[in-house]
Amino acid sequence: MTNPAQDAPAASGPAALKVALLGGGTVGSQAARILTEDAEALRDRVGAPLELTGIAVRSRGAERDWRADPALYTTDAEALVDGADIVIELMGGIEPARTLIRRALAAGTSVITGNKALLAQHGEELFALASETGAQLSFEAAVAGAIPILRPLRDSLSGDTVTRVMGIANGTTNFILDRMDTEGADFADALAEAQRLGYAEADPTADVGGLDAAAKAAILATLSFGAPYTLDDVAVEGITAITAEDNAAAADAGYVIKLLAIAERATAEDGTSGAVLRVHPTLLPREHPLASVRGAYNAVFVEAENAGQLMFYGPGAGGAPTASAVMGDVVSIAQRIVRGGPARLRTPVAHLPALDAAEASTSCMVVLHVADEPGVLRRVAAVFEEHGVSLETLRQVQSDRAAAPGASLRLITHRARQRDLDATVDALAALDAVHEVVSVLKVEGN
Amino acid sequence: MTNPAQDAPAASGPAALKVALLGGGTVGSQAARILTEDAEALRDRVGAPLELTGIAVRSRGAERDWRADPALYTTDAEALVDGADIVIELMGGIEPARTLIRRALAAGTSVITGNKALLAQHGEELFALASETGAQLSFEAAVAGAIPILRPLRDSLSGDTVTRVMGIANGTTNFILDRMDTEGADFADALAEAQRLGYAEADPTADVGGLDAAAKAAILATLSFGAPYTLDDVAVEGITAITAEDNAAAADAGYVIKLLAIAERATAEDGTSGAVLRVHPTLLPREHPLASVRGAYNAVFVEAENAGQLMFYGPGAGGAPTASAVMGDVVSIAQRIVRGGPARLRTPVAHLPALDAAEASTSCMVVLHVADEPGVLRRVAAVFEEHGVSLETLRQVQSDRAAAPGASLRLITHRARQRDLDATVDALAALDAVHEVVSVLKVEGN
Repeated sequence: MTNPAQDAPAASGPAALKVALLGGGTVGSQAARILTEDAEALRDRVGAPLELTGIAVRSRGAERDWRADPALYTTDAEALVDGADIVIELMGGIEPARTLIRRALAAGTSVITGNKALLAQHGEELFALASETGAQLSFEAAVAGAIPILRPLRDSLSGDTVTRVMGIANGTTNFILDRMDTEGADFADALAEAQRLGYAEADPTADVGGLDAAAKAAILATLSFGAPYTLDDVAVEGITAITAEDNAAAADAGYVIKLLAIAERATAEDGTSGAVLRVHPTLLPREHPLASVRGAYNAVFVEAENAGQLMFYGPGAGGAPTASAVMGDVVSIAQRIVRGGPARLRTPVAHLPALDAAEASTSCMVVLHVADEPGVLRRVAAVFEEHGVSLETLRQVQSDRAAAPGASLRLITHRARQRDLDATVDALAALDAVHEVVSVLKVEGN
Repeated sequence: MTNPAQDAPAASGPAALKVALLGGGTVGSQAARILTEDAEALRDRVGAPLELTGIAVRSRGAERDWRADPALYTTDAEALVDGADIVIELMGGIEPARTLIRRALAAGTSVITGNKALLAQHGEELFALASETGAQLSFEAAVAGAIPILRPLRDSLSGDTVTRVMGIANGTTNFILDRMDTEGADFADALAEAQRLGYAEADPTADVGGLDAAAKAAILATLSFGAPYTLDDVAVEGITAITAEDNAAAADAGYVIKLLAIAERATAEDGTSGAVLRVHPTLLPREHPLASVRGAYNAVFVEAENAGQLMFYGPGAGGAPTASAVMGDVVSIAQRIVRGGPARLRTPVAHLPALDAAEASTSCMVVLHVADEPGVLRRVAAVFEEHGVSLETLRQVQSDRAAAPGASLRLITHRARQRDLDATVDALAALDAVHEVVSVLKVEGN
């Protein structure tokens, strides 16, 4: 058990490790800055100097924010990759990132990437290739920006069983929902403000439609349950349909609306054990730790059998924070190259199949606009009972539909299978006495 | 860079690793339960079975909560240690824990401990011994219960520079301060309630006096800054002097009082770079992420140069949560034994000396009861100016000293050196016009 290599002083003047940087944008330029400005501290921690050999950009002059020595910028990414000991991929997008990462891994060169879309679509293929050649593929920055979540999930909880992960994983939607909550704004106005302030892109589809959060749900599930999951395994619902009325109903009931990426162990109705991955607007009690995560911050809430409830909080994006996560991976890989020893093994795990989101167990808040006549309450309650869904609360509430005749009901269910909740809502909508299903929102954290 | 060992299948039927457990109390019994009940999952993750060879207890029958096979309990801790591949120390206290850990490490056997008092007093000696023999000494559970903070600080942020760590590291004091805040209770009543509910011990000195938090401050500083710190390096102030009046003043100004363990980089007046370690009741703005950490939960707030602000939140104590942290360490060490490779190196770092807490930079809220006469404001403000301390706010507030003639002033300073703040308060107390210095509390997180 003794190990003579431990605490051996680093050999004086070991060869520099060649680091190739693919991408010179917001995060790439910050990684270049840290590699340059903090070179001495990094050398001390790694035991060898890290030499930035080049920054591959699409076209010269495209680099942003922090500018490295102009001689470092190149458009020949392949040559850069071929000469590297470590490759950092921060280009984003599927191609050419995928081909360049494959090229590095095939040569046994370890890669650090922050590319969540690529991992969520092609992660399995890339991890398999890394396994074959013994290269490492690290991706802390792809999960939740600067929040250190990879090592806690992979290492710290390795003696425990993670049952559920819920993340506020998209800063744009969190900013928009925050504004809708605090200012009563409707979605269009909050989105316009986010765009004006630079928190949302001109084409906000990937953010507000939930696809960015879905990619993170797939990666979180892969980390938590050890099996590879892709975007196709995630049921996605964005925030575009959220109204000021939804928000008012949520606030009145003591909840706040957050877009959550959820990955959880579940058992299907037929007894299959698996994982459900979903992204949707979610009601959280105001006192839940995730409820107070504001603006562009991200947080990941973890439930484990023994550890209980944990939360990890931090900036979800931004050049320097994301570059910090990238550099943590770079130092780990570089230490292993310098000191030798096996790369981290992925432990064999029983594959937990992705289940249909209809198998999820959740609760629901339903707001109905109903006829103001005798027997309506009874008929509504009967629909829930027929579908095996029990109610936690049922109350008549102030109606925003004041002009229309009728009354508004707000119902919150106990946990039930999503399939049964969906069928219940369909049946409610078909009732004569129900004028309108005003709002249906899932509730977690109760 | 390729590594043939990676992803090699675990040899079928590798020898079991012998795990010795020292201590059968709240945490120890939960560790025994996990080793027993989750044996199969642990074997899959480690690549070899973990065999619990015995549980050392002071006297037979002293074991708690979960009971292992009676044959496992022993009072011969030394024999148990001598036959082990991995030792888990959960006895607490200095002796015999220290001697038993030394015995294991000297034989090259890796040790996992949750013993914060021991680490804060004798950590340097134990780490030096581990270095000599190549054994590992892991201590995730000693820092903040179940919160995974060790790997984020040590690995995830290894490409960044941690500038400050602030932790709510003691559940007992957090519970008491919470009650004082939400119910206006005074210290004695809140302590009595905590004792009645089992959140405080009959002798609460180590908790309410701040010593438990101080041990954690030393460990957090060691993790964050890489140099060994001990209890002696921490300036400690407990919560026993906090009054309902302090709480009312804090609430009125928009703050909440928390007992924080703080470790931060600082530069002394003479230019020396170092670290300041301190534990004291602290005013935090209500919207600060740490402010909403309630009851028996713990949280660690980290500031790093590039990552910005991160927070880690979870249960600070409890058998199963703490055992989860212990088992994460056990799996990591066991994986390394099975797969080979060097133990984690402690990287050489420039020693950052512990500075006197008077060198800390902080701000302060001061409440004064003063004579209600012309010129008082000017004289008070002059004292701050003379000491080079600038004021953020100065306002006359409702006095709880209604019976006494005079007025109450609440002043909040900008950041200044602690030494100058102390001198300012002394000078204020000496002013004729100041009847009483009602409250002096440090402010962070502004």
